[in-house]
Amino acid sequence: MSAIGIIATLRVQPGKEAEFESVFADLAAAVRANEAGNSYYRLFKAGEAGVYKVMECYDDAAATETHRASDHFRTLGARLGPCLAGAPEIETLTAV
Amino acid sequence: MSAIGIIATLRVQPGKEAEFESVFADLAAAVRANEAGNSYYRLFKAGEAGVYKVMECYDDAAATETHRASDHFRTLGARLGPCLAGAPEIETLTAV
Repeated sequence: MSAIGIIATLRVQPGKEAEFESVFADLAAAVRANEAGNSYYRLFKAGEAGVYKVMECYDDAAATETHRASDHFRTLGARLGPCLAGAPEIETLTAV
Repeated sequence: MSAIGIIATLRVQPGKEAEFESVFADLAAAVRANEAGNSYYRLFKAGEAGVYKVMECYDDAAATETHRASDHFRTLGARLGPCLAGAPEIETLTAV
């Protein structure tokens, strides 16, 4: 099975950027520490103010499910939600 | 200086996918072998037929210039060009 890439686009409310970045740093650390099936997970700022993109890569579909069902994703995701200006856009890709 | 992320979107002509993927594999191997300032370079297929995305990360702006000026990028890029259906779209991001 091919690896799976994800590009997540997140729009953060004005004034919430520092809180968002702080919580996301904890999430990224937890992903790296706990998800053997994740090979890449990094947060970037886009050119547009308040827009962030997460580049992600997982070994297979099961690893993406492990990520979404993890305690750290649920707990820290719940803290990210109030920082956002809308639902995340998730683009799913297939590694070549 | 922050690391730099790039998401490159490439549209490949119908029937050119295999050639594109083969040449790109050589390019990715050359990037990994020769660019100390590159930390990520991976090709993915998008949901839309013929659309590919490259996730890239460089240590700094100088490393992106090293990439673009490299012999392998110029030589193999020239072989990728005829496979494409249009100019690549390049989105430049700043690592958080």
